[in-house]
Amino acid sequence: MDQNNEKLDHIRHTLAHLLAAAVIELYPDTKPTIGPTVDNGFYYDFEFSKPLVAEDLKNIEKRMRKILPTWKEMKGQEISADEARQTFKDNPYKLELIEEIIVKKESLTVYTAGTDLTAPITNNQKPKTNFTDLCRGGHVTNPAEEIVPDSFKLSRLAGAYWRGDEKNKMLTRIYGLAFLSRPDLDKYEEMVKEAEKRDHRKLGKEMDIFEFDEEVGPGLPLWLPNGATMIEELEKLAKETEFQMNYVRVRTPHIAKDLLYKRSGHLPYYEESMFPPMEYEGGKYYLKAMNCPHHHKIFAARPKSYRDLPLRLAEYGTCYRHEKSGELFGLMRVRTMQMNDAHIYCTEDQFADEFRAVNEMYIRYFKIFGIDKYIMRFSTHDPKRLGEKFVNEPELWKKTEDMVRKVLIDSKIPYVEVPNEAAFYGPKIDVQVWSAIGREFTLATNQVDFAVPKRFDLIYNDSDGTAKTPLCIHRAPLGTHERFIGFLIEHYGGNFPLWLSPIQVKVIPIAETHFDVAKKIQESLREKMIRSELDLSNNSFGKKIREAKTARIPYFIIIGDKDIAVNKVTLESRGNGQIGQLSIEEVVKRLTEEIGARK
Amino acid sequence: MDQNNEKLDHIRHTLAHLLAAAVIELYPDTKPTIGPTVDNGFYYDFEFSKPLVAEDLKNIEKRMRKILPTWKEMKGQEISADEARQTFKDNPYKLELIEEIIVKKESLTVYTAGTDLTAPITNNQKPKTNFTDLCRGGHVTNPAEEIVPDSFKLSRLAGAYWRGDEKNKMLTRIYGLAFLSRPDLDKYEEMVKEAEKRDHRKLGKEMDIFEFDEEVGPGLPLWLPNGATMIEELEKLAKETEFQMNYVRVRTPHIAKDLLYKRSGHLPYYEESMFPPMEYEGGKYYLKAMNCPHHHKIFAARPKSYRDLPLRLAEYGTCYRHEKSGELFGLMRVRTMQMNDAHIYCTEDQFADEFRAVNEMYIRYFKIFGIDKYIMRFSTHDPKRLGEKFVNEPELWKKTEDMVRKVLIDSKIPYVEVPNEAAFYGPKIDVQVWSAIGREFTLATNQVDFAVPKRFDLIYNDSDGTAKTPLCIHRAPLGTHERFIGFLIEHYGGNFPLWLSPIQVKVIPIAETHFDVAKKIQESLREKMIRSELDLSNNSFGKKIREAKTARIPYFIIIGDKDIAVNKVTLESRGNGQIGQLSIEEVVKRLTEEIGARK
Repeated sequence: MDQNNEKLDHIRHTLAHLLAAAVIELYPDTKPTIGPTVDNGFYYDFEFSKPLVAEDLKNIEKRMRKILPTWKEMKGQEISADEARQTFKDNPYKLELIEEIIVKKESLTVYTAGTDLTAPITNNQKPKTNFTDLCRGGHVTNPAEEIVPDSFKLSRLAGAYWRGDEKNKMLTRIYGLAFLSRPDLDKYEEMVKEAEKRDHRKLGKEMDIFEFDEEVGPGLPLWLPNGATMIEELEKLAKETEFQMNYVRVRTPHIAKDLLYKRSGHLPYYEESMFPPMEYEGGKYYLKAMNCPHHHKIFAARPKSYRDLPLRLAEYGTCYRHEKSGELFGLMRVRTMQMNDAHIYCTEDQFADEFRAVNEMYIRYFKIFGIDKYIMRFSTHDPKRLGEKFVNEPELWKKTEDMVRKVLIDSKIPYVEVPNEAAFYGPKIDVQVWSAIGREFTLATNQVDFAVPKRFDLIYNDSDGTAKTPLCIHRAPLGTHERFIGFLIEHYGGNFPLWLSPIQVKVIPIAETHFDVAKKIQESLREKMIRSELDLSNNSFGKKIREAKTARIPYFIIIGDKDIAVNKVTLESRGNGQIGQLSIEEVVKRLTEEIGARK
Repeated sequence: MDQNNEKLDHIRHTLAHLLAAAVIELYPDTKPTIGPTVDNGFYYDFEFSKPLVAEDLKNIEKRMRKILPTWKEMKGQEISADEARQTFKDNPYKLELIEEIIVKKESLTVYTAGTDLTAPITNNQKPKTNFTDLCRGGHVTNPAEEIVPDSFKLSRLAGAYWRGDEKNKMLTRIYGLAFLSRPDLDKYEEMVKEAEKRDHRKLGKEMDIFEFDEEVGPGLPLWLPNGATMIEELEKLAKETEFQMNYVRVRTPHIAKDLLYKRSGHLPYYEESMFPPMEYEGGKYYLKAMNCPHHHKIFAARPKSYRDLPLRLAEYGTCYRHEKSGELFGLMRVRTMQMNDAHIYCTEDQFADEFRAVNEMYIRYFKIFGIDKYIMRFSTHDPKRLGEKFVNEPELWKKTEDMVRKVLIDSKIPYVEVPNEAAFYGPKIDVQVWSAIGREFTLATNQVDFAVPKRFDLIYNDSDGTAKTPLCIHRAPLGTHERFIGFLIEHYGGNFPLWLSPIQVKVIPIAETHFDVAKKIQESLREKMIRSELDLSNNSFGKKIREAKTARIPYFIIIGDKDIAVNKVTLESRGNGQIGQLSIEEVVKRLTEEIGARK
């Protein structure tokens, strides 16, 4: 966590206390429970003696701002079990937490905020000058100075079960937003507003990109023609890029016998993420949850020599994963995933170059999609947990982690290193990107794999005649169609670049007398593989233009008397308005170049 | 069946009798059972008292040729149950058949062949001058004249259970080949020999096209890079063709809830052809056996008007079907199928044009693949079985069948009409093609569908404001990748045209000093999306060329001192040998044009 993030977390933590203090002053019989921070602020769960309404939030917020200048100091201190029990004797929630801390033999700490902390600590049910809460710490030391009063606000009320368990009492949760400054708060609120406008579920419906159907099943998107076009374009991009970078493609079925997943280790360790089996001819068949086992089988299908490496097997493979109904979310959490997958089998000597090439591919894609902000989260192993959490190959761990780190540094890719979070079989990199409106997405993962190739008996004959096991890099720079298109919808707000637009051109004859010419124009576009729609409605010209704009179509070709007279058309663009009168050949040339450049 | 085919069937039928007559003369205690015709001849199953060896076939064949000139007549006559029982009293197999015929109240007929049929009928266990067998008929009337003696031969022996049931006794089956003339027989035998050489399972392995794996499961091909390349090229062809012909593409998941298949009627009627269900969150999910239900859902996902029709939804959808292990056969019978599927939703008025366009697409593909011989098998309904075997829409049946027939006649497409074999919901067309070596394949099916759109409540608003149900045409001109690539392997004998070849060019440096230039040449090819392989082995030049030829690569680029001196390369083709010295730009231009033309 960088310094600013740490400070922000301390501010949010402090504000949770301030929220509790304000609530207690206004509603003395309220019982505060816990108040953690979240990625845009904080919340606190209370047991209120009467239901709260949205109106009340304003009063509480007002009271927070009134108390804040009096909190000139905030300090923690360790207290004994008895002191703790005594201090919070009126709050069964705090008492429950206290007993748990005691059982775990952890230390009990309270934090007090106020003007003069020499006064004795007070129960948080009775705030007078000071306010004390049970807490592990992580606050600012001088809230009055360090917190900008208008950099936070209370945002909403919600119900929440005590400890998230529906068998417990329903509490009232108050959410607050908090940032380092007012402009940061404004920016965040603007981003949320924009994200709502760009919500991929909303735009996905409006723009006829995808649909769900109850009889097909939740989490299983049906891609309408507009969505399927985007998928095809993304696959074309991947195929071209991968061809240029020396990948070969494979195709594998979506199911396999349990034997395959036992060998890969998915069974039984990953079974809960998989669809249940189909019992068939005395065996069990599973939908594939990952493409790797199938690709390993393709590697093994023919004898390999060092001359065959690196071998890069690519497939836009469709996988199926068990996700609980309640966790499904638009295209972001689904049960079927079309993945930009590939597995690179290489020697140790080839590893660094291969890994560098994978990163170059990411950067290439980021440029195409105008992704300016991204970070690679580099998860490494913990040497103390070798042979337990991490496969026991100390030298391979060190070697590959060093190589990964060196490549990241050399290529000046922004990254953070996260110890102890590697996969079992090797270091991994999660790629996080920010959309045009500043929301963060985790799109893709790269993994290095020392362990599984061995389980599949994958070998190659080295130049010295010995049999060796290759390393395997798992990579999927474009992630899954589902998540990536969900991201792109928000990123572009539906205004996709020409090459990615489901409909690239709207052909608009001004009046019925221009229909025949318009039809011919559309035919010329079709011949050149340009996707167009023809508006033969009786709508007014203005309405035709408005509809094309609403549909976010990048170009309009307008055909009227003046155009036909000179055997030309009028080209307009979604973004830049009228471009001018051009011959259809000129239009095709211009669009074809723009499509080819993927601009 | 045309006249020649009917005559050939009668000859084969007669020869089965002749085979039995010869066997009885040579091995009097043999019991003949049944002797049907097959598509290249006939066979007869016998119970022999001692095992037969291949040598015996020659004797039997010789005896057949000796008897044939004496069979100047062959005639059938009806006999009573008692006569039949008496005539075949020594043959329990015939007696079993006789009792069955009696139970079914069908007439009992025997056929006798010989020189003088005025003699009484004889048991086929005791052939003297005449030979009589229990038979339904369908023979030539003068075998001695009508059968060319060297137009048939006995081909092989096999074991076969009585009535195909393994609980019964194992009989000896003798196969014979029979044609109208000796040249026809020779041609057939040549075709079989060539088909063995071109066997898609053999070439598929040799050319690294596909592989099966026990842990993945039988009938589930893994497509190696060479096979995946062919798949990609076929899909590219389909996508371009379909785009030009105004289709739009969709993508649908490979599974769905049982609810979908209950609505479509696949459950329970088609359940035995489907994989068993996955029990999931209290529901049942099935692998899709057909794409139609998913496409119907996409049609229904948005309101439709007559302006939206015809709507042509295309998807290379992957389906899964239950096939028994014993019925699996290479790529020809598999459990997973990637299908060149599309569903065309149209009004009745649009039907003829749509159907014509589908046929045009077939013809377009046939030209590309050099398929010269094909026939459309047009299956129609039987008006007597409306509402039972065929959906009760007499007018729609008549109308669409008339339209289909008219289109077939107008477009001069060779077709045969087969009454009473339509699908439940409409007339259908099976497309049969012949490979370059003359073997017949059924590649694709078109169907007209009146019934299912109604089950899915598919409607469009017609121009008069009323809601109507569209007709649906199911079509898949390229069939499935599995079957089509299996066909193409045999059709081309592995010598695929340039555009379809997994590796299009082999780059062959003559010596190590030419390696660097060769690498650059390969890079130039890759930039232009031409698939090449570079031979950097230490093999002799001769061996390099031989290997490239064995791998059936269409072009070789050879690089030696003489080429480098003039900054050119030497181009050779698989078929036509050396083409000449060309600059790499000239080579790229030539290949790109040939690929683009799909020649």
